Amino acid sequence: MTLNDPGVVAEVTAAFHEYERALMADDIAAMDRLFHESEATVRYGVGEVLYGIAAIREFRKGRGGSPQRRLGRVAIAAYGRDFATANAEFFREGTDRRGRQSQSWVRFPDGWKVVSAHVSIEGSGS
Amino acid sequence: MTLNDPGVVAEVTAAFHEYERALMADDIAAMDRLFHESEATVRYGVGEVLYGIAAIREFRKGRGGSPQRRLGRVAIAAYGRDFATANAEFFREGTDRRGRQSQSWVRFPDGWKVVSAHVSIEGSGS
Repeated sequence: MTLNDPGVVAEVTAAFHEYERALMADDIAAMDRLFHESEATVRYGVGEVLYGIAAIREFRKGRGGSPQRRLGRVAIAAYGRDFATANAEFFREGTDRRGRQSQSWVRFPDGWKVVSAHVSIEGSGS
Repeated sequence: MTLNDPGVVAEVTAAFHEYERALMADDIAAMDRLFHESEATVRYGVGEVLYGIAAIREFRKGRGGSPQRRLGRVAIAAYGRDFATANAEFFREGTDRRGRQSQSWVRFPDGWKVVSAHVSIEGSGS
């Protein structure tokens, strides 16, 4: 299995940044295209756990947009041609507390999709 | 790509529970075997961000063991034969706040390994 094939990393990096753009613009259709349409798709947000694409869609519609944020360190790793992870630090406006976003990406016939996402704000404890 | 091949799900489920056993027993050698030995491996913990297996090992050695916890809902999904995600809720002793653990698993020649992990306690906000 090839780690970090440059072409694969470039594809996932582009998809990652397209998702970030969509999130900041509250472009729900674009966010939806980048998440796998499946009951198996999971999103753990800062304050919620969501199982399945239907629950994720409902949350987005009711959210009124994500808090604005800037990205910190971004680490993308590709395992073979069809799977990648994207881990990113972020900082929301008005706070110095570090946020963290982890995504698992899978290549499907219609493109790269997030199959699992976890977002949290760094806390105390281990 | 086959979603949730039963044999693959069974393998990853066994690896997931072996990791949970090792974590609760502070069996550092077993935890180490179940994480991919790579600079690309990432672990976001409740209170720390760790890039690369060396940083993850150092953290474990200095931690003195994880808080004890019980698992809640566990959702494991396999994409093809070589990749899976494991999302689990957990509750630490002495608190009702929900913890969440997300892992990305990849099959290597020497077995299934976590390549990315994110652990957090559910907070307020979105």
